[in-house]
Amino acid sequence: MNQIIELLKARKSVRQFEAKEIPKEVKDAILEAAFHAPTAGNQMLYAIIDVTDDVLKQKLSETCDHQPFIAKAPLVLIFLADTRRWLDAYKTAGVEARLPQMGDLFLAIQDAVIAAQNAVIAAESFGLGSCYIGDILENVEEHRTLLNLDEYVVPISMLVFGFPTKGQIVRDKPKRFDKAYMVHENTYKRLTQTQLREMHAKQSVKNDFDFDAYITTFCNRKYMSDFAKEMSRSSEVYADAFLKNRS
Amino acid sequence: MNQIIELLKARKSVRQFEAKEIPKEVKDAILEAAFHAPTAGNQMLYAIIDVTDDVLKQKLSETCDHQPFIAKAPLVLIFLADTRRWLDAYKTAGVEARLPQMGDLFLAIQDAVIAAQNAVIAAESFGLGSCYIGDILENVEEHRTLLNLDEYVVPISMLVFGFPTKGQIVRDKPKRFDKAYMVHENTYKRLTQTQLREMHAKQSVKNDFDFDAYITTFCNRKYMSDFAKEMSRSSEVYADAFLKNRS
Repeated sequence: MNQIIELLKARKSVRQFEAKEIPKEVKDAILEAAFHAPTAGNQMLYAIIDVTDDVLKQKLSETCDHQPFIAKAPLVLIFLADTRRWLDAYKTAGVEARLPQMGDLFLAIQDAVIAAQNAVIAAESFGLGSCYIGDILENVEEHRTLLNLDEYVVPISMLVFGFPTKGQIVRDKPKRFDKAYMVHENTYKRLTQTQLREMHAKQSVKNDFDFDAYITTFCNRKYMSDFAKEMSRSSEVYADAFLKNRS
Repeated sequence: MNQIIELLKARKSVRQFEAKEIPKEVKDAILEAAFHAPTAGNQMLYAIIDVTDDVLKQKLSETCDHQPFIAKAPLVLIFLADTRRWLDAYKTAGVEARLPQMGDLFLAIQDAVIAAQNAVIAAESFGLGSCYIGDILENVEEHRTLLNLDEYVVPISMLVFGFPTKGQIVRDKPKRFDKAYMVHENTYKRLTQTQLREMHAKQSVKNDFDFDAYITTFCNRKYMSDFAKEMSRSSEVYADAFLKNRS
């Protein structure tokens, strides 16, 4: 095992930060690491919004499912799947290019998320914690206005960074599912009900794990929640901009 | 600068591999690093297909835009955005859960791609090269059959891994766009035509860089190509399975 594997395995989400600024050279190194991420055809189909304005941070902490810790993060980066910049380059060169479609969006989302994860790992290497805020996908109308997004630019990931508090450092990382359920050899296999029960029981730290109760609570709290519904509504609006350009 | 930043900056795509197997413990460490990636609510909304069957590898090298090097990669992993497994868990627990929607897909895609990038970095730490194959998003009907995917499981990223040939090791990494064009402070700014021309000129290694000619060629070869059209057609089919469950 090497140092990099150790870092990847140890990294966990951090939601409480010390009141300590991030040095400029560290921030620059994080961004540089993001830019060096793999990207389809070297296109870098993303852009990054660096949220330095405290008022904007405060607003985002509200629009992203009311999570006050977002406003306290010393570094907030929004990774945008950006199919606008290349379209504008095509127009600038005078090429008659089609409008962006679903494949372009999926490719741009990959570029944006790959870059985001490089930023996470780079930050970790400086002792900085981070957390993905999936809720940036909600409230499309507000976020389009707040961030000045056009229809071909989708805020797919938001990351907050900062030096973790002691409480966050000692917190256990949640256990993952076993490889046996996650890796399928050559063909996708739907898990049986028995396997699903086993998978969750093995992940749980409790001896008296109650699958039905746990899953029911989780479903109601997460999957059937208002924020999940809102995320889907907004995601449909984002997707529709690309689907209207079907061939 | 630390060792991890150096690795992230140095990593480049590798498409030609030595005929050398990947040791089992290295493959296990790569998968383990993937599982330890950040994931929304610890759900691990993805699954990984480990392509060990040479016939299947051969077929994928054809269906993914006819790239023979895929068939020669000692390790091929397909990262699936998987909204099926949790849906089945909900059903197993007897909860009346809605069918997966667009927000669930976007979240699952993020989980899958974040895990994929951890695998890339883990591989790099062992001296293994890797390459994302975006073309796995094409030919939806064939891939659904080949990999036994159901409608709530989307093959978002394919990665090939192997020990790089000497030619690949000495190859230059393509230059990225400058930070000035990639990072926007607080608000998204569409680049002007002048900025777009500058951005591409600065990225080019040529002194006599011809923006119009370069962009026109690129557009025709990539963006207007048959494989891009096919990627969008297939992506629409994948998206439609989720969009039909709109509230």
